[in-house]
Amino acid sequence: MTEPPGLRWGDPAKAMTLSPAMRELVSQALGVTPDKVRPPVAPEAIELPEPALDAAAREALTAIVGAEHVRGDREARLAHTRGMSTPDLLRLRAGEAADAPDLVVAPASHDEVVALLRECAARRIAVVPHGGRTSVVGGLQPAREGFNGVVALDLRRLDRVLQIDQVSRTATLEPGLSGPEAEAVLVEHGLTLGHFPQSFEQATIGGFAAARSSGQASAGYGRFDELVVGVRLATPRGAVELGRAPRSAAGPDLRQLVLGSEGAFGVITAVTVAVRAAPEVRRYEGWRLPSFTEGAAVLRRLAQDGPLPTVLRLSDEAETALNLARPDEIGAGEGAGGCLAIVGYEGAADEVEQRRDSVTAILRDAGATFEEGAGEAWAEGRFRAPYLRDALLDAGVLVETLETATFWSNLADLYDSVGAALRDSLTGQGTPPVVLCHISHLYPSGASLYFTVAAAQADDPVAQWREAKAAASDAIEAAGGTITHHHGVGVDHKPWYAREIGPLGVEVLRAVKATLDPDGILNPGVLVP
Amino acid sequence: MTEPPGLRWGDPAKAMTLSPAMRELVSQALGVTPDKVRPPVAPEAIELPEPALDAAAREALTAIVGAEHVRGDREARLAHTRGMSTPDLLRLRAGEAADAPDLVVAPASHDEVVALLRECAARRIAVVPHGGRTSVVGGLQPAREGFNGVVALDLRRLDRVLQIDQVSRTATLEPGLSGPEAEAVLVEHGLTLGHFPQSFEQATIGGFAAARSSGQASAGYGRFDELVVGVRLATPRGAVELGRAPRSAAGPDLRQLVLGSEGAFGVITAVTVAVRAAPEVRRYEGWRLPSFTEGAAVLRRLAQDGPLPTVLRLSDEAETALNLARPDEIGAGEGAGGCLAIVGYEGAADEVEQRRDSVTAILRDAGATFEEGAGEAWAEGRFRAPYLRDALLDAGVLVETLETATFWSNLADLYDSVGAALRDSLTGQGTPPVVLCHISHLYPSGASLYFTVAAAQADDPVAQWREAKAAASDAIEAAGGTITHHHGVGVDHKPWYAREIGPLGVEVLRAVKATLDPDGILNPGVLVP
Repeated sequence: MTEPPGLRWGDPAKAMTLSPAMRELVSQALGVTPDKVRPPVAPEAIELPEPALDAAAREALTAIVGAEHVRGDREARLAHTRGMSTPDLLRLRAGEAADAPDLVVAPASHDEVVALLRECAARRIAVVPHGGRTSVVGGLQPAREGFNGVVALDLRRLDRVLQIDQVSRTATLEPGLSGPEAEAVLVEHGLTLGHFPQSFEQATIGGFAAARSSGQASAGYGRFDELVVGVRLATPRGAVELGRAPRSAAGPDLRQLVLGSEGAFGVITAVTVAVRAAPEVRRYEGWRLPSFTEGAAVLRRLAQDGPLPTVLRLSDEAETALNLARPDEIGAGEGAGGCLAIVGYEGAADEVEQRRDSVTAILRDAGATFEEGAGEAWAEGRFRAPYLRDALLDAGVLVETLETATFWSNLADLYDSVGAALRDSLTGQGTPPVVLCHISHLYPSGASLYFTVAAAQADDPVAQWREAKAAASDAIEAAGGTITHHHGVGVDHKPWYAREIGPLGVEVLRAVKATLDPDGILNPGVLVP
Repeated sequence: MTEPPGLRWGDPAKAMTLSPAMRELVSQALGVTPDKVRPPVAPEAIELPEPALDAAAREALTAIVGAEHVRGDREARLAHTRGMSTPDLLRLRAGEAADAPDLVVAPASHDEVVALLRECAARRIAVVPHGGRTSVVGGLQPAREGFNGVVALDLRRLDRVLQIDQVSRTATLEPGLSGPEAEAVLVEHGLTLGHFPQSFEQATIGGFAAARSSGQASAGYGRFDELVVGVRLATPRGAVELGRAPRSAAGPDLRQLVLGSEGAFGVITAVTVAVRAAPEVRRYEGWRLPSFTEGAAVLRRLAQDGPLPTVLRLSDEAETALNLARPDEIGAGEGAGGCLAIVGYEGAADEVEQRRDSVTAILRDAGATFEEGAGEAWAEGRFRAPYLRDALLDAGVLVETLETATFWSNLADLYDSVGAALRDSLTGQGTPPVVLCHISHLYPSGASLYFTVAAAQADDPVAQWREAKAAASDAIEAAGGTITHHHGVGVDHKPWYAREIGPLGVEVLRAVKATLDPDGILNPGVLVP
């Protein structure tokens, strides 16, 4: 690859190309003919701002972490420019890198993080904690005004497993461990974290905690914030250490104030998570339900009365027809209609068998039919959608996702409202979209909705998406959903987030931030309205 | 009863007397012979402070709620004097009512609460939210200094069920509903909250939320804070409304900042909770395990690998020998040794049967033997211990409970340390105690320990207990436990709580309080160090 880092998702070796059937589909459905390709600008055309920090600042930071861990070169800066939302990628592909940090600094310990934060506070340098750079909500896009520069705090060197407690089934992990790295160590000890979001291969433990991640197996293992029993936060004023027991009545649960703080209150330098016995069995199945409405009713019944599969998700009719679960086969054949559910089980062999028997009976009662190979196909492709996005962006397709959640009684309204808002906005801009949706995280009282949108790229695809995203966000707000179920707030969701928690909620956040980060250097402009 | 209100727990009709066997036992084990009785002082001997609030203040509050809902009479003030800890009761029994509020004001709506808070803020009147008055940690004992008076805000008139959503299985409840009142309405709709702490019959929904309550069936239904999906908080600055979905990544979970705020951040005026289908079957069994260590290992295995009974608790050898689960029979016979576990199941009949089969196999593998009638006896007496305490206090016994939690790998150390601290402290004061303990709330990564202590009352039993409680709290801190698993912080736990969350954690709490309650009128001195 001659492309600079940061333009695409993940591992270049795993890059996808569009199949002929897929090319035909985007041509037919979206009018994106082969002449509409939109390759990124040439690497040398990407404009980086002049580095803002002076030699004295660089020396002070170098004194803390060592020269080899302070980088200001073009490659390092580009690799830490914003995150992985479609607008983030589109802007970089267009050569716009105005948000590039001035320096990338990589500490190796909690104490180094605290020292760096103190130094940056004293020098009015903004600090953006970086893990796997998988934010899709502008979480790595700090406000620069009022600061002497921006440092990307690369946490990948904080990559130790600090403790594994087999009796308590907990693991204390540093934030820079990636999903696969953490899982590999746990598996050696016969354990699993069970946290597999779509970003799993790239994202880090710190990011999971800072952004309240939820994985594809959340039905079985819980959200990341539910797995956390302890957390250590580094702030410019020192450390906060929380979690002397799984649960407590010692005041408000301050762990839940750190989780979701997106680098704005401090840098998470250790997380203690509940882990499980590594499953003997992993089994994923596809089941076809007659309709999204009927399928949602079955999911609700399983979430409320059990038993719950470990993985449970349901595509709507449009997503089922497109067969997004098999990205290599998109457009390859005729669908059988209805809605595809992925139903997965992980655990001890006999427990899985018992649970599967019960769930299967409930699915059959609801008219579901088994779909040969669909579960395996989903498992094979479960982390690949971001690679497909890159290929689609190259081809001239605008493709992005957004998500929300609400209570069950409101789910159908929310689904209709958001879908209509996306279709109206993009059609009104002259590019009728394809809008797909699935239910992917369930609770006894409600569930999440995950939308994927594809349309032909307009001349200014960033503006095009901004308008559609605002329409969808307005629709979410009006329909009573939360502005985000697992992507986080970042910069992109702030206006809606502010209304979701109300003016006093906003003041509470500001008061917490002013206490822990009095100079306001931590990820400025992110999260806190 | 000629006794004034507030001297004893609950319903006077349910008052207990000590059986002859029990009298013999306290005489033998604690040296509390029948001549050591300690009846409360005569009603007229209880000294109430002069009411501090002037006519203008009373008129202003009356204008909001109506004259019949503002009371300053002796009976109303006594009924709102402190809570139900043993020191609370001992002080009132000794005629000391210095913490009596000046007025008891009973609003009927969220808007009236906000108006009252604004009026009190303007007049510098401290406000103590009151539900069932079951705090055992000094949660209703405000600092008076700097205030013109103290109002007890009686929330019992906010007793409506605002919504029942059968599809989402949620209920929106006002804070003044007692446990049985809420449960009665839910049962009519085929639902249950499943929240049955020992205080169930007296405590209220608002109290459950404000103090992070955990019920006896927490293994099956979860803690109260886990059931809450929405909350409305009235503050002197207006309302905070939180909870658009079961879970969200829209920033920190601010609901978890309201839960456990103990009236110091605002008054909870509505709570939306996840509810369940009312169980077809409730079945409680007693199982005798060879030892506390072996029993704890079985509980851990069930908590980590499942399946979990709905109720699961394990008494240590001392508690088992005393048979506290059958208060009427205490001292009546020989124990069989070992440790008694209560194992309860609630749910659909077939699901309960399947779950019970699996759990029973695991219990038998661990050497457990079925104890005829023990489960039923526990269920019959599950809410009666506070009545027994009143009878013991009359007899001259000092009896109190305290609780903590930690991770499984630390549980034995915590158990040993706290037990030793209690025995050392009270023995050193000349009254060798009986110390009992059980595990009553379990998580995959840890569990709670609940201690009951009995000793002969010293001349000053309040000072006697203060010393023992401080020793136990120091031991909890040193052993790494949380200062409270489900009783809350109140005034009593504040020093240890402050060290548990650290100086920055304390500053965060103060910042939140200053934002929502800038005049500091809300339960001053409680929770926030």
